[in-house]
Amino acid sequence: MNADQGPRLGETVMRRLAALARFSETPDNLTRRYLTAAHKGAAAQVRAWMEEAGMTAGLDAVGNVVGRYESDPPGAPALLLGSHIDTVADAGPFDGNLGVVAAIACVGELAARGCRLPFAIEVLAFGDEEGSRFPATLTGSSAVAGRFDPACLESRDEAGTSLGEALPAFGGDPAGAAAVGRARADVHAYVELHIEQGPVLEAEGLPVGIVTAISGANRFAIGLAGTAGHAGTVPMALRRDALAGAAEMIAAAEEIGGRGDGLVATVGRIEALPGSVNVVPGEARFTLDIRAPEDAVRRRAVSDILARFRDIAARRGLALTVEQTHEAAAAACTPWIMTQLDAAVAKQGVRPLRLPSGAGHDAMSFSGFCPMGMLFQRCTGGVSHNPAETITLEDTEIATRVLLDFIEGFRPGE
Amino acid sequence: MNADQGPRLGETVMRRLAALARFSETPDNLTRRYLTAAHKGAAAQVRAWMEEAGMTAGLDAVGNVVGRYESDPPGAPALLLGSHIDTVADAGPFDGNLGVVAAIACVGELAARGCRLPFAIEVLAFGDEEGSRFPATLTGSSAVAGRFDPACLESRDEAGTSLGEALPAFGGDPAGAAAVGRARADVHAYVELHIEQGPVLEAEGLPVGIVTAISGANRFAIGLAGTAGHAGTVPMALRRDALAGAAEMIAAAEEIGGRGDGLVATVGRIEALPGSVNVVPGEARFTLDIRAPEDAVRRRAVSDILARFRDIAARRGLALTVEQTHEAAAAACTPWIMTQLDAAVAKQGVRPLRLPSGAGHDAMSFSGFCPMGMLFQRCTGGVSHNPAETITLEDTEIATRVLLDFIEGFRPGE
Repeated sequence: MNADQGPRLGETVMRRLAALARFSETPDNLTRRYLTAAHKGAAAQVRAWMEEAGMTAGLDAVGNVVGRYESDPPGAPALLLGSHIDTVADAGPFDGNLGVVAAIACVGELAARGCRLPFAIEVLAFGDEEGSRFPATLTGSSAVAGRFDPACLESRDEAGTSLGEALPAFGGDPAGAAAVGRARADVHAYVELHIEQGPVLEAEGLPVGIVTAISGANRFAIGLAGTAGHAGTVPMALRRDALAGAAEMIAAAEEIGGRGDGLVATVGRIEALPGSVNVVPGEARFTLDIRAPEDAVRRRAVSDILARFRDIAARRGLALTVEQTHEAAAAACTPWIMTQLDAAVAKQGVRPLRLPSGAGHDAMSFSGFCPMGMLFQRCTGGVSHNPAETITLEDTEIATRVLLDFIEGFRPGE
Repeated sequence: MNADQGPRLGETVMRRLAALARFSETPDNLTRRYLTAAHKGAAAQVRAWMEEAGMTAGLDAVGNVVGRYESDPPGAPALLLGSHIDTVADAGPFDGNLGVVAAIACVGELAARGCRLPFAIEVLAFGDEEGSRFPATLTGSSAVAGRFDPACLESRDEAGTSLGEALPAFGGDPAGAAAVGRARADVHAYVELHIEQGPVLEAEGLPVGIVTAISGANRFAIGLAGTAGHAGTVPMALRRDALAGAAEMIAAAEEIGGRGDGLVATVGRIEALPGSVNVVPGEARFTLDIRAPEDAVRRRAVSDILARFRDIAARRGLALTVEQTHEAAAAACTPWIMTQLDAAVAKQGVRPLRLPSGAGHDAMSFSGFCPMGMLFQRCTGGVSHNPAETITLEDTEIATRVLLDFIEGFRPGE
C-alpha cells in the first residue's frame, strides 16, 4: 500500500462493487441472472467504467462486456483479465464482480499514469458463469475461448424463455455467438481475480493466494437396499440396516477424502427410508462429491472410496447402486503465470501461498486454449453465495495492487 | 398335533382370522381402527364366536369384548387370555387378532370336551392397542388392569371426534370406564399369544417362543450444528461437517446396541441441511431408539451412547442437542408363567426358546397389576404392520395347542 495515498485503488473497487450490487432483479437482496434487465443495467455500468478507464468497450454477441486497453504499438496480442457479473439468487456482492471491477481499476491506474504496455489488456465481464437462470454454465467465457456450444441456445429458464430468445433483447446475437471465440494468436493468457469462497486464506492469515488448479470433480448418487424392520423386534445381528451401512460409508469417504493433496470428499444429502423413528431403515440414499486439483489423485480416491463402499455393502448384505451424475477434469493453472503471480504477491509483502480452487470459475473455460491463472482474495469465513459474503478494504487494496503489479511485470509466454 | 385329527384347531383359527379380516374400514386392505363401524362388526363377530364356544360374552364400557368361561365351582378367579382386534392402517390380519381367536378356539375345545377347570377363563378382545385412531394406546387393556386414564376421553381423531364422543355409538359408556378395572383378587394372571413381529423364531427354526419381557425404550431427537460450507473449497481439516459427525454417532449407536442382552439401538430417520450435493452439511438431525428387556441394560446403553455422542461432538466442534421424546420401563414377564409356558411348548415337541419382545403389547398394561406372560408365534420374515404379514397353518396349530396345554396345566400363583 502506498503510505502517502491510503488504499486508493481498494476504495474505488469497494465503492464500485457497492454501486454494482444495486443492479438486482429483487429490491431487498442481490439476484442478477444472465440476460435480465438487472444484468443489462450492470453491463451498461461496467461498460461506462471501462470507457472511463481509457478502454474501448462494448457488448459481444453472447452478452459479455469487453473492454480493450490498446497496446503500444497497437494491435498486439492481449492479456485477458476478467470474471463474471451474473450472480446466484440471494448472492453476495463480490463473487465474480470483484475480478471485473478490480481489473478495470488497474487499467484506470495505468491510463491515469499514461502508461501503455507492449501487450493489450482486455477486461471481460462475463454474462453467465453461475448458470442461475438457464441450465448452462460458463456460457460467456466458453464463447470467448472458442468453445461456444450452440445447443445452449435452446436451454430454457423457468418461465420457458430460451437463451437464444433472451439474447437479442439484451443486445446480443445468437447468430454471432460462434464468432466471439478468439484466435489463439491474439491472446497471451487469461488471468482472473476472484474471492476464495473458502476458508484457507483466512486460516493462513493471508489476504491473497495463488491458485494451482481448479479441481476436477466426480459426483455420485449412492443407493443402498437392505431390509426394513421393527426397531424393537429385529435383533442387531439379524439386521440389514441400510442407514448403518451408509454411515460407515460416510466415515470411509471422510477418511479417504482426508488424505491431502487438496482432495475433498463430501456427503451433502442423505435420506433413510421409510424414515420412522421405530423402523430399521431398509433403504438409504446419499450423494457423494469428490474433488482434487490433480486428476490422478481424484481418480485414485474415487476408486478407493467406491471399493470401500462395495466391501461395506457386501459385508452387511446390502445391495449397492452407484450412479455417476457428474465428472469434470481438473484445470491446472499455467506454471509461468503462477510464478509471475507469486512475484507480484511477494512484492506486496505477502507470503505467496499456493492453493487449489475447489469451486469452478471462468478460468476453467480457458484451460487448454491459452495459458491461464487465478488470484484468490480472502473472504470472511469462506462464506459465499450468501448476502453475508464479506471482504475487507485492506485485502481489496492488496489484491488490486497485486493484479496491477502482475500486469506491469507481465512477460508473456515464458 | 393329533395325527388322527390333522390341524383341526389351527384350521379353525386360520379360517376365523380370514373372516375377521373382512371387517375393514377400507375395501381393498385391512384397516380397523378403534370404535369404527369395522371395529363394531368385528366385535360382534368375536362375541358370537365366544358364545358359540360356551362363554357368556358382552362389550365392556370401553369397547372391549369380554367372554367368560365359568369355573367349576363357579365364581373362581380368572385366567385372562387375549389380545387386541384393532389394527393399524393397511395392516396384516394376524397382529392382535391371532391371540383373541386362538384363545376362543381353546375355550371351544374345552367346552366341546365338557371340561371345566377350577379357575375361570376370560377372553379379552381389546379395542385399542395400536393407537391408530386416537393419540392414545393400550386403552382397552389399561382399563381392565385398573389403569384407565380419563384424560384419554378427550383425545381426538383426525376428524376431530373425541374418544369420549365415539364410545356411546359403539355401545360403550365413558362414565363406566373406570369400573372396567378388575379387582386383583378376581384375576390369576394375564397371558397373551401374539405373532412375534420379528425374525428371531424364523432364524431359530421354531414355531413359538416364550417372551421374557417387553423391552423398555428410550427415544431421542438428536441435533448437530457445525458449519455449512462449499464442498469444493473447504479443506477436510477445516470442516465442521454435521453429517460426518452424525455418521460416526450412528456407528457408535450400532456398536453399543450390539452388546447383547436383547439390547437394540436404531437410527430410523436422518436429515442433513442444507441438503445439497455440493454443500458440506452445517446441520444434521436424527432419531435414536434404544430398547432392552432389562431396564439396567437399557439405561447403561443410553448413558454410554450419549457419552460417545458428546465425545464425538466435542472432538468435531459440533454443537449437540439431545431431546428425549419417549421413555418406558421394561415389563418383565412373570417367572412362574414362563416356566409353565416352557412346559407347554416342550409338550408339543418344541424346544422352549425364551426371547424378549421389542414391541409393545397389551400384556404391558398388566405388568405390576397381576402376573403376566406372552407366547410368540413365528411370522414370515418378521414382517408385520403390512398386508404381507404371514403365518402358517402348522405354526398356528402348534401355538394354539401350546395355549390349550398351558390352560389345562395352569397352576395359579406359583
